[in-house]
Amino acid sequence: MGGLRPGTTVSATSIVSPRNSKLSRTAAERTISFYYLSGIDFPGCSVTYDIAADKLTLWIPYTPPATVLWFGNTPSPDDCLAKSDVHDAKYTSQLPGYLSSRLAEVKALYALRASQLPKFDGFEKFKPKLMIDIASLQPVMDEARAIKSDCEIAMIRKANDISSAAHRKVARSLHNMTNECQIEAAFIGACTAENAHTQAYPVIAGSGVNASTLHYDANNEPLAGRQLVVLDAGTEWACYASDVTRTLPLASKFSREAKAIYDLVHQMQDDCIQRIKPGVVFRNLQLHATLVAVKGLLQLGILHNGDANEIFKNGTGAAFFPHGLGHHVGLDVHDVLSRDLLRPAGEGMWGKRRPIGPQSVRAMIKQANQDLDHDSAHTSTQHQKRQTTNHGILQPDMVVTVEPGLYFCRPYIEAYFLRNDEHRRFINVEVLERYWDVGGVRIEDCVLVTRDGHENLTTAPKGEELLRMVGLDVL
Amino acid sequence: MGGLRPGTTVSATSIVSPRNSKLSRTAAERTISFYYLSGIDFPGCSVTYDIAADKLTLWIPYTPPATVLWFGNTPSPDDCLAKSDVHDAKYTSQLPGYLSSRLAEVKALYALRASQLPKFDGFEKFKPKLMIDIASLQPVMDEARAIKSDCEIAMIRKANDISSAAHRKVARSLHNMTNECQIEAAFIGACTAENAHTQAYPVIAGSGVNASTLHYDANNEPLAGRQLVVLDAGTEWACYASDVTRTLPLASKFSREAKAIYDLVHQMQDDCIQRIKPGVVFRNLQLHATLVAVKGLLQLGILHNGDANEIFKNGTGAAFFPHGLGHHVGLDVHDVLSRDLLRPAGEGMWGKRRPIGPQSVRAMIKQANQDLDHDSAHTSTQHQKRQTTNHGILQPDMVVTVEPGLYFCRPYIEAYFLRNDEHRRFINVEVLERYWDVGGVRIEDCVLVTRDGHENLTTAPKGEELLRMVGLDVL
Repeated sequence: MGGLRPGTTVSATSIVSPRNSKLSRTAAERTISFYYLSGIDFPGCSVTYDIAADKLTLWIPYTPPATVLWFGNTPSPDDCLAKSDVHDAKYTSQLPGYLSSRLAEVKALYALRASQLPKFDGFEKFKPKLMIDIASLQPVMDEARAIKSDCEIAMIRKANDISSAAHRKVARSLHNMTNECQIEAAFIGACTAENAHTQAYPVIAGSGVNASTLHYDANNEPLAGRQLVVLDAGTEWACYASDVTRTLPLASKFSREAKAIYDLVHQMQDDCIQRIKPGVVFRNLQLHATLVAVKGLLQLGILHNGDANEIFKNGTGAAFFPHGLGHHVGLDVHDVLSRDLLRPAGEGMWGKRRPIGPQSVRAMIKQANQDLDHDSAHTSTQHQKRQTTNHGILQPDMVVTVEPGLYFCRPYIEAYFLRNDEHRRFINVEVLERYWDVGGVRIEDCVLVTRDGHENLTTAPKGEELLRMVGLDVL
Repeated sequence: MGGLRPGTTVSATSIVSPRNSKLSRTAAERTISFYYLSGIDFPGCSVTYDIAADKLTLWIPYTPPATVLWFGNTPSPDDCLAKSDVHDAKYTSQLPGYLSSRLAEVKALYALRASQLPKFDGFEKFKPKLMIDIASLQPVMDEARAIKSDCEIAMIRKANDISSAAHRKVARSLHNMTNECQIEAAFIGACTAENAHTQAYPVIAGSGVNASTLHYDANNEPLAGRQLVVLDAGTEWACYASDVTRTLPLASKFSREAKAIYDLVHQMQDDCIQRIKPGVVFRNLQLHATLVAVKGLLQLGILHNGDANEIFKNGTGAAFFPHGLGHHVGLDVHDVLSRDLLRPAGEGMWGKRRPIGPQSVRAMIKQANQDLDHDSAHTSTQHQKRQTTNHGILQPDMVVTVEPGLYFCRPYIEAYFLRNDEHRRFINVEVLERYWDVGGVRIEDCVLVTRDGHENLTTAPKGEELLRMVGLDVL
């Protein structure tokens, strides 16, 4: 809580319905903060933190027997104390009394939002002298959440272990499958059978041309005649997410073209993961992956009429690698501050559902050059003028995905690149024709930033191990 | 649309985001109406119905290529006409023009709710002469939805077929399972592998004492030492629900007590299903099931100190059968008008999460007697004074669940029945002691009301077939 006025006596009160796996993602997002503060995830609770006394108190509901009949009993205060690091646990019936006595003594009450203030008639009484601040708590919590504790890393690791085992299981039985739905079924079944009941996001099992849809989720088409399938699926463990993508060759149809794209994406990923360590500007990894892609696509003849640097600087690589390289992973699969990980200074809107187009690539290149100039011209005491904020720089105990991809999404490439001479001149449409059926390739791991480098938390098979597993000789 | 002023020229406009399997249940409920009117379930559509012209028009969005990259393309007007019974399909860009010309001619516009009116600047202009009615459409749609069309019955049948096969698969492999999560995994996996990607409600897989929690959903405890498991799970097909419960004996521990309760619930269900035909008051089936339960519990010695009729009229049976016998099934698993299926006249609040207690049983008995008196004293022309409304009477092409259960939920029974002499005197606490570990038994099928009786749409194994399947000799 370092960002909240030090030295004053304040209370931070967060009243939310805790997360429930059956909630929509939006509702769940609202309740992640509660779980982060309390470690508790059943409904009807509140939590208060007395900053001066450093005392975190959980307030839990009493569940009447008629509700027990319907939903089962909820944990007692002792259960909660055994399960969570809160300093005290009491019934919510005692909360008004606590607030009455504490608010008489403090000057400020921090809450995540007005709608999450406790139901308490006494606020009016204290209002003249009490500052109720609903703006300051969220940003400091977000800062804290970007750096994971050991306990959080353990949960993300466990989620990755279960997801990796499920990916392995799918790869092993892929030869028996005839429809995308069986891939989804095998993945979800494998996770659920390990008591991981909630997927961190909807499973994507897109074969052939469906692999070129980034958030494909129908998962209902036959595999026959298709070259590969992109399986983007990760489970939760104790509310912590994993996010894992594997591209599975469909052995009978896996073409030279598909293999070439697979190898290139694997190289993009491998190169970026190797570079991960504290101090690295994540956006520069995005640029590196894009440059590797452009070089590879030149070699394959899909790009032509220019050298790699020229095409890279033109942003044409975004036709095939049109999304962010990665994001934070934590209580949310796209965890807090993920947008700031890639956004160049001065770019306002920056959402996960907005493609990274040529303009964005150029803005990233421009900023990388400015940062370089600045770094060479200034001493470290003037470092605050550097445009890349700390939010874009990797720090120990961050967990980020590294998920490059190359896609042949015909409507997208035709509309924005082939109709535009600035890009079309670099694209060999004749060669490209042989790649539409590949669809797309994405490979994604969750990577922990360590003090001196990184650790890959995802152990699902990829590369040669995966090719052998699905019955392909390594070419 | 029979309930909307006949003869006048009106338009019914419903603008909603269609259902999406990733939405929360609440959001999904809002969009079921759209699917019911249009047969279309992708986002951003509208539908209008011109009552005078009997013309149903679907308005669909144009999807820009950047969105196609993310979510794939959406169907064209021709795709929609091939898939749905709408008379015409056009792009939403044409909707304002259509509304301008139609609203100039009509006197009334019906919409499901104000928030679902289309974004259209022209409403102000037409307001002086146009009645915008947001109250009349929903009730007539609900009336229509309670009676299923052949197409709807086919979808509900298909959902039941997939769920029944999944229940069968679980029963066959139960002997290999050691934790509730494996039951959930096998069920969801089996449905998903048949391209049924959405469960109609969260899976309940409760073993032992967890079987006494009606909406248990943790599904994470070991099966060791437990006598049985209640598996309440049903998938959707094309947005239509199934709702199926089987109680699975855990062979090594399944006791005489568990078998006795299983047989009694099976008898409650069988007796009720046999009685289903048009004209039957559904509430009277609830009373019948309760009477069968009381007689059986008397024979087992759990009830004593009275005759069946006396205990039945006292409402004490509600200690063990504390919920509704069933509900409509359709686009929603608890479909529209389900509350009216059981609510006695004059009972206001009547929700699915409120136990049916002794007072409710007594109110039902009172109403049944009044109906009887009325029916014998009045001619059919005065039938409208009968207190049971049509909503509580079975009609051909309704689909309802029949889901009796008996539960030994200690906190509930102790708090409301054993502390109350009025009920405690009928309960033999010593005998009851042997039943706490049984937990609970529920058996649930989806039953179609036919012209001359009924058809059970659920084919999951139960009774002797099930006992044999899980390795038990039929006693």
